[in-house]
Amino acid sequence: MNASDLIGPDLAQGFLDSLVVVLMRTTHPGNIGAAARACKTMGLSQLRLVEPGEFPCEEATRRASGASDILERSQVFSSLDDAVADCHLVVGASARSRKMQWPLMNPRDCANELLSVFASEVSKGARPRFALLFGQEASGLSNDELQRCNYHVNIPANAEYASLNLAMAVQVLAYECRMCALVSSEDDALNVVGTQNGEQWDEVLASNAELEGMIAHLEKTMVEVGYHDPANPRMLVPRLRRLFQRTKLDTMEINILRGFYKSVQKAIGHKSP
Amino acid sequence: MNASDLIGPDLAQGFLDSLVVVLMRTTHPGNIGAAARACKTMGLSQLRLVEPGEFPCEEATRRASGASDILERSQVFSSLDDAVADCHLVVGASARSRKMQWPLMNPRDCANELLSVFASEVSKGARPRFALLFGQEASGLSNDELQRCNYHVNIPANAEYASLNLAMAVQVLAYECRMCALVSSEDDALNVVGTQNGEQWDEVLASNAELEGMIAHLEKTMVEVGYHDPANPRMLVPRLRRLFQRTKLDTMEINILRGFYKSVQKAIGHKSP
Repeated sequence: MNASDLIGPDLAQGFLDSLVVVLMRTTHPGNIGAAARACKTMGLSQLRLVEPGEFPCEEATRRASGASDILERSQVFSSLDDAVADCHLVVGASARSRKMQWPLMNPRDCANELLSVFASEVSKGARPRFALLFGQEASGLSNDELQRCNYHVNIPANAEYASLNLAMAVQVLAYECRMCALVSSEDDALNVVGTQNGEQWDEVLASNAELEGMIAHLEKTMVEVGYHDPANPRMLVPRLRRLFQRTKLDTMEINILRGFYKSVQKAIGHKSP
Repeated sequence: MNASDLIGPDLAQGFLDSLVVVLMRTTHPGNIGAAARACKTMGLSQLRLVEPGEFPCEEATRRASGASDILERSQVFSSLDDAVADCHLVVGASARSRKMQWPLMNPRDCANELLSVFASEVSKGARPRFALLFGQEASGLSNDELQRCNYHVNIPANAEYASLNLAMAVQVLAYECRMCALVSSEDDALNVVGTQNGEQWDEVLASNAELEGMIAHLEKTMVEVGYHDPANPRMLVPRLRRLFQRTKLDTMEINILRGFYKSVQKAIGHKSP
């Protein structure tokens, strides 16, 4: 199934709302706060804590920064079973090699898979919920916990040092889920690609005639200051063309460049064209 | 151009080695350490610090965890100019809306673009270096700093709370660069976004120092011909920066432009710098 057939902007946020970050026996309260912040920046809002080492805690609130509301609404559980009871799929963050093979995905494929299932379920009138499960800082998820998961997700890290901070791993997975939802919904929030000529650019793209006028003016000025010899042109003009044509100049830039050439011509006593 | 024509596993690591994370005036040393850890887990190894608030520092080392080698090898600079002088492209992490529009990409497109330029430059025998620039925690990059960038990169965050922790932003960008390199080196079918720096491009990309030299020379020449009044600068210089920084000038183009300015200065009787 192609999720993009089904997902619109409202469903994109619905997908992010369906994600529940579950932290197992987190040792450092700072990591709980940082994970809450990571969730909120990516539009996730549900945080569940299984046997946290210390919570609530000032350090967690401090590191949550503007996401203290996520912390306050977080739920504390005494077992993984209880924490994921209402979830339809459980994805466990895992180091790469395990004794027992399990369906293993990278974060991008995982996000696509979850979105795809979400769209399918919603089309049937269901309200699915997905758990993203993260183990203790030092030890990760236990084998028992990993075997409670539908999938394992692995961030493809540097083999020489693969130990992402817990909240960093939450950030990466949440980011991939957000990117996946935005790409599928073609949400404006994502539509920021390159495109100096997009709607957001502050000036109007110059016409080809304006561009040609500017290049001709530059050529003439280059001749007048003795830099360019039309009798021995070499590759100068093609190179200038290549430079300015790939730049997609706006009208203001054309005006600036021509204003400069005009000043040069005036300074050396030539008439501008 | 298709970068996958050029990128193999060795080049994938070469690409990660070409990335330089530059942190501007970081206030909290813990964030420097966490950024070092984020870099190392994703296979990046170069960290540069411009006027860090406190460094070296025990808190930075603690948060770096197993990435203390990156911290130890990090370089401290007193200016952004010095920190990026040997870099060929500078990408600035930016919030979304700015007074002046600049080419803006999401992290995925940014990683694709950098990899594409990397593959192209390497095919010419060059060893490019790319700066990923991050501003101070509270304020981000200043307008002046943003105008030193070829591109801006924006993590498409929750509009209601878009404030990613500094090291989290480093993690996301480094992750995208790693994913991009891994996907390209493993998947022949992947089409990486093309750039002007295709295989046929004949010249080597200019370094940041060369670009800055050209812009300074242009500014000076504009003053000398009476076009630019430094006492009433308006937006002239930012607009020139935006024009030339998005163009990714090659060394031959820099030589042509500076040759022209020199001829202008000579024609009006000024000494060239």
